[in-house]
Amino acid sequence: MAFKHVNKGVKRVDAYEKVTGKAKFGADLEFANQLYAKVLRTKYPHARIINIETEEAEKMPGVKGVFTAADIKNNLFGVIVEDQQVLAEDRVLLAGDGVAMVAAESEAEAAAALEKIKVEYEELEAIYDLDEARKNEALKIHPEKDDNQVIHHPLRKGDVEKGFAQADVILEREYSTQLIEHSYLEPEAVVVVPEDENHLVSIYGSIQNPYATRTAVATVLGAELAEVRVIQNHIGGSFGGKDEVVSAMAARAAVMALATKRPVKMVNSREESFTESYKRHPYQLKYKIGATKEGKLTAMEIEAVADSGAYACQTPFVTWRSVVQATGPYELEHVKTDTYGYYTNNPYTGAMRGYGSPQIIFAQESLMDELAEELGMSPVELRKKNIYRQGSITASGQKLDGHTVSLEEVMDKAMAAIDYQAKREKYSQAQAGDKKRGIGLSISFRGCSLGAEAVDAAASLIQINKDGSVAVYSGLAENGQGLKTIFSQIAAEVLGVTLNEIDYMEVDTTFTPDSGSTVASRATLIGGNSIKNAAEKLKKRILDFAAQKFEISIEELELKDGFLYNQNSDRLALFSDLAAEMINKGILLSAYGWYKGPAISWDEEKGCGNPYFTYVYGCQIAEVEVDTGTGELTVLNMAAAHDVGRAINPANVKGQIYGGVVMGLGYGIMEEVEVEAGQIKGKNFHDYMIPTIKDMPDIKPIIVENPDPDGPFGAKSVGEPTLELASAAIANAVAHASGKRIRSLPLNLERVLIGRALSKGGCK
Amino acid sequence: MAFKHVNKGVKRVDAYEKVTGKAKFGADLEFANQLYAKVLRTKYPHARIINIETEEAEKMPGVKGVFTAADIKNNLFGVIVEDQQVLAEDRVLLAGDGVAMVAAESEAEAAAALEKIKVEYEELEAIYDLDEARKNEALKIHPEKDDNQVIHHPLRKGDVEKGFAQADVILEREYSTQLIEHSYLEPEAVVVVPEDENHLVSIYGSIQNPYATRTAVATVLGAELAEVRVIQNHIGGSFGGKDEVVSAMAARAAVMALATKRPVKMVNSREESFTESYKRHPYQLKYKIGATKEGKLTAMEIEAVADSGAYACQTPFVTWRSVVQATGPYELEHVKTDTYGYYTNNPYTGAMRGYGSPQIIFAQESLMDELAEELGMSPVELRKKNIYRQGSITASGQKLDGHTVSLEEVMDKAMAAIDYQAKREKYSQAQAGDKKRGIGLSISFRGCSLGAEAVDAAASLIQINKDGSVAVYSGLAENGQGLKTIFSQIAAEVLGVTLNEIDYMEVDTTFTPDSGSTVASRATLIGGNSIKNAAEKLKKRILDFAAQKFEISIEELELKDGFLYNQNSDRLALFSDLAAEMINKGILLSAYGWYKGPAISWDEEKGCGNPYFTYVYGCQIAEVEVDTGTGELTVLNMAAAHDVGRAINPANVKGQIYGGVVMGLGYGIMEEVEVEAGQIKGKNFHDYMIPTIKDMPDIKPIIVENPDPDGPFGAKSVGEPTLELASAAIANAVAHASGKRIRSLPLNLERVLIGRALSKGGCK
Repeated sequence: MAFKHVNKGVKRVDAYEKVTGKAKFGADLEFANQLYAKVLRTKYPHARIINIETEEAEKMPGVKGVFTAADIKNNLFGVIVEDQQVLAEDRVLLAGDGVAMVAAESEAEAAAALEKIKVEYEELEAIYDLDEARKNEALKIHPEKDDNQVIHHPLRKGDVEKGFAQADVILEREYSTQLIEHSYLEPEAVVVVPEDENHLVSIYGSIQNPYATRTAVATVLGAELAEVRVIQNHIGGSFGGKDEVVSAMAARAAVMALATKRPVKMVNSREESFTESYKRHPYQLKYKIGATKEGKLTAMEIEAVADSGAYACQTPFVTWRSVVQATGPYELEHVKTDTYGYYTNNPYTGAMRGYGSPQIIFAQESLMDELAEELGMSPVELRKKNIYRQGSITASGQKLDGHTVSLEEVMDKAMAAIDYQAKREKYSQAQAGDKKRGIGLSISFRGCSLGAEAVDAAASLIQINKDGSVAVYSGLAENGQGLKTIFSQIAAEVLGVTLNEIDYMEVDTTFTPDSGSTVASRATLIGGNSIKNAAEKLKKRILDFAAQKFEISIEELELKDGFLYNQNSDRLALFSDLAAEMINKGILLSAYGWYKGPAISWDEEKGCGNPYFTYVYGCQIAEVEVDTGTGELTVLNMAAAHDVGRAINPANVKGQIYGGVVMGLGYGIMEEVEVEAGQIKGKNFHDYMIPTIKDMPDIKPIIVENPDPDGPFGAKSVGEPTLELASAAIANAVAHASGKRIRSLPLNLERVLIGRALSKGGCK
Repeated sequence: MAFKHVNKGVKRVDAYEKVTGKAKFGADLEFANQLYAKVLRTKYPHARIINIETEEAEKMPGVKGVFTAADIKNNLFGVIVEDQQVLAEDRVLLAGDGVAMVAAESEAEAAAALEKIKVEYEELEAIYDLDEARKNEALKIHPEKDDNQVIHHPLRKGDVEKGFAQADVILEREYSTQLIEHSYLEPEAVVVVPEDENHLVSIYGSIQNPYATRTAVATVLGAELAEVRVIQNHIGGSFGGKDEVVSAMAARAAVMALATKRPVKMVNSREESFTESYKRHPYQLKYKIGATKEGKLTAMEIEAVADSGAYACQTPFVTWRSVVQATGPYELEHVKTDTYGYYTNNPYTGAMRGYGSPQIIFAQESLMDELAEELGMSPVELRKKNIYRQGSITASGQKLDGHTVSLEEVMDKAMAAIDYQAKREKYSQAQAGDKKRGIGLSISFRGCSLGAEAVDAAASLIQINKDGSVAVYSGLAENGQGLKTIFSQIAAEVLGVTLNEIDYMEVDTTFTPDSGSTVASRATLIGGNSIKNAAEKLKKRILDFAAQKFEISIEELELKDGFLYNQNSDRLALFSDLAAEMINKGILLSAYGWYKGPAISWDEEKGCGNPYFTYVYGCQIAEVEVDTGTGELTVLNMAAAHDVGRAINPANVKGQIYGGVVMGLGYGIMEEVEVEAGQIKGKNFHDYMIPTIKDMPDIKPIIVENPDPDGPFGAKSVGEPTLELASAAIANAVAHASGKRIRSLPLNLERVLIGRALSKGGCK
């Protein structure tokens, strides 16, 4: 099939407005008569609130309102568990919990008033350590619960005792991963505008999940969903991070907007963002693996424990993804996995690009290299003996068919691109001097979209106007990933119009039904299918009309380049003329699109089922240089091969690969939110290191295309798979270069220097 | 069928926000950083522009831009004929044409700058008289046209010569009607906000036809329709008047908003509104009617000429409705009708509640009373001998079947309500003193909705949320007539939810397809059917789901009061729980509704066909007192019986009747825009008289219900039929009271005093 728009690296539809600075982000929004609000956040990780004194603050210049929990109708919210307070009422559970807020004529006046609020606390014992949190006698962070456990996902397959008995080699290792920040360019921002009776409030801002924000605000205000309107604007990155934290912000602003009857704007500074936003879950991972001496895996036993911080947030979903990916993409008869989330008084953790997979892949793929070494086998050979292939059965009992299982293909293509075999051999020889090079790889399979987490459907809406211009909307949100461009390409492809004719609108919860969050790399697959569905409905209406008009069968007609063609490639009509004629005849040229993923299943007690309806496969390889004198680690080259089904926009897919690799590299070698006794240290990008241009390796993106039968034009996912692999590949390369196995992230200078001594794992 | 919401006089859904002042109208809109703009309008009815000097104005404080025609990409617009300029380029055609405009930081600064613009004109000969405009040698107002004719609609049926030959009595009469103002409470207002690349501008304001405004602005800017977004807000009355004039205003503001990159607000003062807005067409009407001495009509010949002013605007549609109604609701074998519109340099004329019918009915129904007098027959008897009945054939050859032709019913009910017969007899006796009483009636048939004017379809959109709240949108606009309430009732009726669950949204052209203008009393009929269509689609989805869930056939299930019931009236589930369950299962609970009226036809050359798919019937009776000494005219009582098919909201229908009767009374007895040599005199409500509380008669509204097979729950139209009858009924009552036949509107003091002497008609 020859595509006109799909499978082409067309320019982003929002490029011009972003490059010229015309695009408005949260902080750019200005409403007439708006107030500015600030939140007073506690410095205590766990304390009882004895008293809040706001009188002095209320008298400060420009202040229009000082608010505490007492001013909030329904103070509890939470996307999965309602355990978070809009403002703390009697206890604060983490350093950063909001206790009061001020709306004032200017941001400076709001900030000045905050200083005048006096809060009296009684400090309480706190839990910062996961082992401590897990103890039965531990202090309960949420006393209404039996213990500090947020979630436990078990998975049992076969009989691990039997499996380990068949093993010639058994390894037991412990790994750990760190707390990191999303580091989106744009800190959180919202403006809430009070509306009239029928529509209580309109919410604008940097909002990743407009529907969840709508639910949270409606809950807090005690309003109907239809009365709360959320309109998304341009977002300066999100990576999973602008969900609950922005919902809380919107709920706070909504309370103030209704009370003051004026629009209320809240924009976090970078420091406030560090304090308030949720982070990536730190994991403690215990792996036990058995294999025959020929390298056939016999059993795997895994315990993964995630620190949820003070709130549940997305922990149940994040840890569930870990369960599915825990064994890696390897055939195993016997598996036992227990994945947990626990409350602590640390900063809370939630969704972040890859959620639950980068942690587990770091452990799993490090372990595979450790096992290969133990078996005296090459990492590639060991993997190829065990990887999922067409028809393999996963740890949860799912048979992988109906899509192409391309693990070997992505491995081979990545290896070829970076000259893996030659470099592996070369660097395995003794290297002179302090600077040692190494090369390492990691692979993964990743379930596409939400899977059995939640309802997996999305809506769209396409409207064709009399002049042939086409308005396209989706319930999914552009977070910078290129969704608008992808969806425009799909609509243009189906309708046979030029991309210029497509005009893209932001999400507005009043017009598009709940389409879930733009997470889980689901936009192209689920949202794209929904756009295709809407466009196909309209195409059918147009061709039905044209067939009658020109007395030609539908099969002989084609919409292309803004024209209607017959089989002889004669232009029969302009698309715009057909549209005008149909509309003038009273034919509806607007349609909803809807797509719900194929059936999936999950048994939460047994940990079995078909959790996702399709998977993507990836392989990343890192070539590194380690200065064994200074510990300096340089990632020289990376190859990243990802089977995306079909690249709707190859340039964009490459962009995703570049971004994912470098974000994975930051996770692997430098990023860490340092927390001491619940306090975040260094809430800025001087202290918190993220990769810069100087850290960039040469990246070779390899797009592998095995069209998926359920994907729009065969497309699957790309956003998250590109991030989850780098840390393990780099760790394996570092081990190859230096002989030092590092089992804790990040692989920073100190750990690279000291190597194994720092890690907790031990050999059998 | 027992209704729960329909056919009940429920409270208006927008009552609270309007009563409390929360509702925002055009002038209430405030956008951050907005500019205010004013237009310089010419005082010349016809002049050549020699030069426009803006330099001094540009230097005035606060001025951000001074604009002339040279700054406008495409200067021509017009809903039917593109004959209007956004700003006059080389000629002005009426006193009030815009020649320049200023955007400034404040309204006062914009106004001050206007004073500094120097325009040099060369005055041109002008035409103010219709007879003059019709002369072949007349000056051409639009030189690109052959003559000053805007439109000519002929209608020929049978052979009028033959018909007149059969007559025992032939009357020839001339009537005339005046120019009047819409007199909406809220003068015109718009704000245009510049957006980013993909969506050029958003337009808010007092906009009756958002789609026409979108088309006009897109045309003027040279933009795609999808790039121009029109969002309607509360409108303080429109009555047909906020269409083209607001489009022009929006186009002007859009030009300035794009140039200044800031929101631009324009609000007309009352004087500016009088100057700029189009009015109701003055008509000159010549009627010739023949009848046998038994009172059977044999032929009618009609010439109706409308003054279009300087622009075509809606003249083709307004005069077309006159054609269809010209003979009144009377069976006639032989008819010849010629209806014209002509350009003059008077204020231009366009759509106004009733458009084309109040003029024609005044003449037609006055004529019937004159004929009855001539025949020595009662007006009721003459009418009943000739009225349309079930199966009658109209002047255009349409057979009236498929709906109930209820003329006799509305006449009888109106007469009973006001005690017509007794009063007629009593007042026909000699009355002592100067104060004479009389009673008169008029009747009409009126085509519902647009008919063959234009495509007659409308869209809606209903979205059910997880909490059971229902968002309802329509492409038709609430102008104050109660549309939101009617549509909410229809949606609640179909979905079986309470009205509290319904949340109504304003029109937004980006989400609902072009649904035409909210005119022609089409909202309940066309829009209501569209809402019903959307609700029924969703109801079907819900019942399909419930039938499966509860293993009951769909026929045994009912949605009512927010619950699902079985046939035993057991509550099986909450509506909101069903909605949540369906949404959580990925079932789409949003739907487009669409309704296109049944097939109609019109042959423009022969003036025949089925111009409307259904009709409404009405009768109004006026009881008056005339002081033959002072000429003072008091309308004491009025009865108004209207067959609306089904009253979705009887309280609202009564409101429409009260409003329509009093507006018809104003038209009949006092309103007139006085124009001298193209200049409007008295641009305010001191000089321009509209009825006040003191002029209100006691009004008896009578709702007649003969459900229409094509109406939603049988409903048809009510807005316009209520206005078109009063002036004729009052004129007939005045003639009855005083013996003076007045053939020109308004029936003011002077005319009542002098009576026939002033009128142009003469007896055979």
